Amino acid sequence: MSAKHWIQALCVVGLAVLICAPRGGAQAAGQLNLMPYPASVEMGSGEFRVESSFSVAQTGHTDAQLDRAVQRFLRQLSRQTAIPSFGSAPTVSKVALVIHTDAASKEVQELGEDESYVLEVASGGVKLNAPTTLGAMHGLQTLLQLVAVGSDGFAAPAVTIRDTPRFPWRGLMIDVSRHFVPLDVLKRNIDGMEAVKMNVFHWHLSENQGFRIESKKFPKLHEMGSDNMFYTQDEARDLIAYAKDRGIRVVPEFDMPGHNTAWFVGYPELASGPGPYGIERRWGIFDPAMDPTNEKLYKFLDELIAEMAKLFPDHYFHIGGDEVNGKQWDANPKIQEFMKSHNLKNNEALQAYFSARVQKLVTKHGKAVVGWDEVFIPGVPKDIVIQSWRGQASLAQAASQGYHGILSNGYYLDLGWSTARHYAVDPMGGAAANLTPEQQKLILGGESCMWSEYVNPENIDSRIWPRNAAIAERLWSAQSVTDVASMYTRMHVVSERLDLLGLTHQKSYRPMLQRIAGPASPEEFAALRTLADVVEPVKDYAREQLAATEPTSATPLNRVVDAVPLESDTARRFSELVDKFVAATCHDADGEARLRRQFVLWRDNDARLEPLAQRSFLVKEVAQTSQDLSALGAAGLAALDFIAKGGGAPNSWKAEQTAAMQQIQKPKAQLLLMPADAVQKLVDAAAGGGTCAAKN
Amino acid sequence: MSAKHWIQALCVVGLAVLICAPRGGAQAAGQLNLMPYPASVEMGSGEFRVESSFSVAQTGHTDAQLDRAVQRFLRQLSRQTAIPSFGSAPTVSKVALVIHTDAASKEVQELGEDESYVLEVASGGVKLNAPTTLGAMHGLQTLLQLVAVGSDGFAAPAVTIRDTPRFPWRGLMIDVSRHFVPLDVLKRNIDGMEAVKMNVFHWHLSENQGFRIESKKFPKLHEMGSDNMFYTQDEARDLIAYAKDRGIRVVPEFDMPGHNTAWFVGYPELASGPGPYGIERRWGIFDPAMDPTNEKLYKFLDELIAEMAKLFPDHYFHIGGDEVNGKQWDANPKIQEFMKSHNLKNNEALQAYFSARVQKLVTKHGKAVVGWDEVFIPGVPKDIVIQSWRGQASLAQAASQGYHGILSNGYYLDLGWSTARHYAVDPMGGAAANLTPEQQKLILGGESCMWSEYVNPENIDSRIWPRNAAIAERLWSAQSVTDVASMYTRMHVVSERLDLLGLTHQKSYRPMLQRIAGPASPEEFAALRTLADVVEPVKDYAREQLAATEPTSATPLNRVVDAVPLESDTARRFSELVDKFVAATCHDADGEARLRRQFVLWRDNDARLEPLAQRSFLVKEVAQTSQDLSALGAAGLAALDFIAKGGGAPNSWKAEQTAAMQQIQKPKAQLLLMPADAVQKLVDAAAGGGTCAAKN
Repeated sequence: MSAKHWIQALCVVGLAVLICAPRGGAQAAGQLNLMPYPASVEMGSGEFRVESSFSVAQTGHTDAQLDRAVQRFLRQLSRQTAIPSFGSAPTVSKVALVIHTDAASKEVQELGEDESYVLEVASGGVKLNAPTTLGAMHGLQTLLQLVAVGSDGFAAPAVTIRDTPRFPWRGLMIDVSRHFVPLDVLKRNIDGMEAVKMNVFHWHLSENQGFRIESKKFPKLHEMGSDNMFYTQDEARDLIAYAKDRGIRVVPEFDMPGHNTAWFVGYPELASGPGPYGIERRWGIFDPAMDPTNEKLYKFLDELIAEMAKLFPDHYFHIGGDEVNGKQWDANPKIQEFMKSHNLKNNEALQAYFSARVQKLVTKHGKAVVGWDEVFIPGVPKDIVIQSWRGQASLAQAASQGYHGILSNGYYLDLGWSTARHYAVDPMGGAAANLTPEQQKLILGGESCMWSEYVNPENIDSRIWPRNAAIAERLWSAQSVTDVASMYTRMHVVSERLDLLGLTHQKSYRPMLQRIAGPASPEEFAALRTLADVVEPVKDYAREQLAATEPTSATPLNRVVDAVPLESDTARRFSELVDKFVAATCHDADGEARLRRQFVLWRDNDARLEPLAQRSFLVKEVAQTSQDLSALGAAGLAALDFIAKGGGAPNSWKAEQTAAMQQIQKPKAQLLLMPADAVQKLVDAAAGGGTCAAKN
Repeated sequence: MSAKHWIQALCVVGLAVLICAPRGGAQAAGQLNLMPYPASVEMGSGEFRVESSFSVAQTGHTDAQLDRAVQRFLRQLSRQTAIPSFGSAPTVSKVALVIHTDAASKEVQELGEDESYVLEVASGGVKLNAPTTLGAMHGLQTLLQLVAVGSDGFAAPAVTIRDTPRFPWRGLMIDVSRHFVPLDVLKRNIDGMEAVKMNVFHWHLSENQGFRIESKKFPKLHEMGSDNMFYTQDEARDLIAYAKDRGIRVVPEFDMPGHNTAWFVGYPELASGPGPYGIERRWGIFDPAMDPTNEKLYKFLDELIAEMAKLFPDHYFHIGGDEVNGKQWDANPKIQEFMKSHNLKNNEALQAYFSARVQKLVTKHGKAVVGWDEVFIPGVPKDIVIQSWRGQASLAQAASQGYHGILSNGYYLDLGWSTARHYAVDPMGGAAANLTPEQQKLILGGESCMWSEYVNPENIDSRIWPRNAAIAERLWSAQSVTDVASMYTRMHVVSERLDLLGLTHQKSYRPMLQRIAGPASPEEFAALRTLADVVEPVKDYAREQLAATEPTSATPLNRVVDAVPLESDTARRFSELVDKFVAATCHDADGEARLRRQFVLWRDNDARLEPLAQRSFLVKEVAQTSQDLSALGAAGLAALDFIAKGGGAPNSWKAEQTAAMQQIQKPKAQLLLMPADAVQKLVDAAAGGGTCAAKN
């Protein structure tokens, strides 16, 4: 506790702005490529070389969990360096890394355990000290991030790092119901979570589209409600142990009383409307809901929660509670009767009645409830945790009444936001900023959410990573760590490491494009890649709105919109280049040359792609976008020509280009052509009206 | 039998050159992207569309092996199309694919089973007929290769294919001893073998550097001779079943009496020289060899062969026999004494004595021997198979005496030859061409060999694939299928499919380069990639000769030479472009423009890469090669300038360039800069002496 408080003091009190904010160092471009960035970093001089003689010793408390973590560390160090094995070389003279740990993590990992560590890297060796196994494991991950190729070999820069998380609840939720996510895919994502120091895996196990966990008590839940795609209890135990080994708690979610059509396939008597029910194949909010007036429902839930509370050891148990549209309740006279007789004025009151009863069941079985905003109702027990999909205001409201909360609004990975936008969302932002320090402590952290309408094992990693690393930093690092350029630089490096760790967010892109291209010449394929590199899927929920036919779980996810990353690196860099060029009042010869090369490539790209569009319906779908990209290239070149002549493009030209740009900016094939905004800036500059004024 | 003979007749008798050679079709560039190319292809009209309603029915013989093959087929079809599942759509009106099989494959798959099939694709459906499960499985692989994205959806062109292999033994050997190869890596390579219709996995299980299979009888073999990297017998059985399911026999090799230092670590008494022995860490040929005069050795081998013959069900058992240097025999007076008393005139005779005895043991345990050339000694049983690492002459010699043989000379994947060079090697080439038809039948096929001095799980796939697909074609397809351009085109497509199947030959390239680069800007990384794309590792055994320090099994395989493919696609295409340009007597404006773009990129590349060379020792190693590439770019541009002016570059210029080129062509960092030869052609053309003469 004392070490933790001392470290927090360093950063929170602002004692040392210089050593808390990302700053210069031996690694790469003047900054350590760490993510999340540690609480305190003091650079030393020299570096520690990683050789095949590298070996590890432990002092203080040791346990099997830490031993396995050390073995994992060595395996990953081997992957990073391609040194086949460590510590077996005949020249081992002294121990390279000494880990000192004071105590074990709790047998069932708990919220709020000390996760701090101190890592000292010197040319002669590395020391890692931590009060708990959890801290030691985090320190090992930091050390892995420090090791990179250097001018004489693989090395970590000399540095002293004192680190502890800002928030104790740093989670990732994965919806395994809308699309089933196989166990190995979950495991590699848990590996990724460990690498960025997240500590809660929220397993969204049931939905209208699937009940994904074996119930021995009520086997029709998974047998009839999962298309035979579910986890056995043994598999769940395996995953829980896997996560625990990596310092990650597993919180299961059983969403109630809505979002559960799949339950009703086997147990229609639980629903508020007459059956029979089939597994839902579409996306959205649907009418079926549990019947809160049915006493048999509570008996059922009592037994199910008893079973699941035993399977999932974590203290927290998520009961969902979101998005009940109430239609089945309105249409059921028996329910209406019940509401009247129990003085329940509306559906919110009915849901509150249901929530209160379910919360009692959860408490009875020794657990504390987590639920979405809707479960926050007067009189709920104080150990409930509100997960806010609605926003910081609702979180602040709960905190002001003494309730714990975690933020998910702003961290929905499926909405396709830029990393910068997620990164700007802080659990202490908005209304939470006005809370008292005491109330602020009730905000435990946050969770990113991967809703799975449009993911499968092939593209799910690219929807989560690398952006999730920036959210992990938001939840771990000081609130003052907000530099976006630094974030992108470091995230880029972490992204490569996650790739080596086994995640497929980078690896799966090319094969998916190959499927779209079919047999293609290298030039044709390069043209597809050039186009794909600068588009992004439409944002928020626009994909449903723009769908030609209603998407379902049977829809192939084989289109360009499914293959491209949710954030285009190329477009982001291009946009930065344009901003820099314009900020230099268009007097940047090198920038101009680079822009010209880019525009020529784009202008000529459609002609190269056109043969493929003839052969592949998946390329044909983006033919208009390809033409738009060529138009962007031509417009950009024309703008540069005007600028080179001192600006003064005619208003008619500007109007024409702007009108064209508005067409180009419209989503097509559910894609956005990202460089359009930046090209518009050049068009404006060419017309001499503003941005290049100093020159013109 | 009759179907098979009939199909062979079609091609061998030359009845139908048009339908046997690769030819026009609906797929891509006028040719079906099949590899190995089938014996007979008759194009139909239209195409068969693959929808989610796709379903499969079986008639005739059915069995569990075929059921599993169909499930695998459907999974792969799902990967190729991203259609989540087949046959469950409500619109299933009729069966899409009907498989008719006459009979099962043998319970233990045998050499020479009928592997033929007939595949008829029409717009209304697909029929697959085969005399055995093996043929049906091959037909399914062909169908997978036919399906590609089309203008309206995923489809296979209408076609009738009658197919059967040219050779019954089409193998891949993997050396799992010099570097251990984990089971999952073997499995994905066996998946690849199935995709290209290879049918023998030759498992090189023991070597100086490791004894890799658990022996319950002699546990010190794997316990002391493997660094704890071995396969349990359960794992071996698992792999054998996995291979059998894919129509692939597993032939184990226990190399004797040399190449077995690792055996002697636990059992030094088997050796011809005094112990103790340690696991060998270096590469090469070493002195330790079994003592053929020791009766206890034969008792040991009797029991070991008994154990392994039971574990490995295949009829064939490989006893190695290669490369005994005889030094331990020469130095052992007891052995010299024995040779004298048994009238064994030299070491060859002693080895023949040993071989004869081991062959009797193998026969006693119900197996037939396979061995390298050296085991072919007078009087060996007729069911022995000679595997020739020495060449076709030695194979022809064996055949002329009535012995079976398979060719591996020319198919050593580790030597880094171009695919075209491997492809040109035919088991019936060289001396074998002069055999009588009866003798030719004794040549059963061939095996590609992956010796593992320089491979690990990260790069082994890229050493085997895609080149192995071309060797598979050589062993399956008609001898007349030799068009190199067609081969490269089809191999490129198959390579992408293998990637989707789970092989990592493409996927692992980028992460390996990332490790070399370390944290790098996109421009720096692109520069490294540009250089890496045009180099190849030195050929044959030059890597050992050029090594600064002796490589061992502890040497990290993290250098550019370990990361780049063994054949540079970019360099090959560049070379083709230069040849085309020069053949057009340098009057090819488009070609000239493309060459100029390429040269400018190369010329400017070193400046972009230079900062990385400062930061990474693995980039620094290729700094000279990078400068050489820039020099090539500059020389190429200068040559094009002369050519544009009608040639006539001064002799002094030509001499200077040629001298520079000779320096550039020298290996550096164990790499060859591949475009140098083609640039030299342009230098020659610029000097007006020849190639561009028609213009000048």
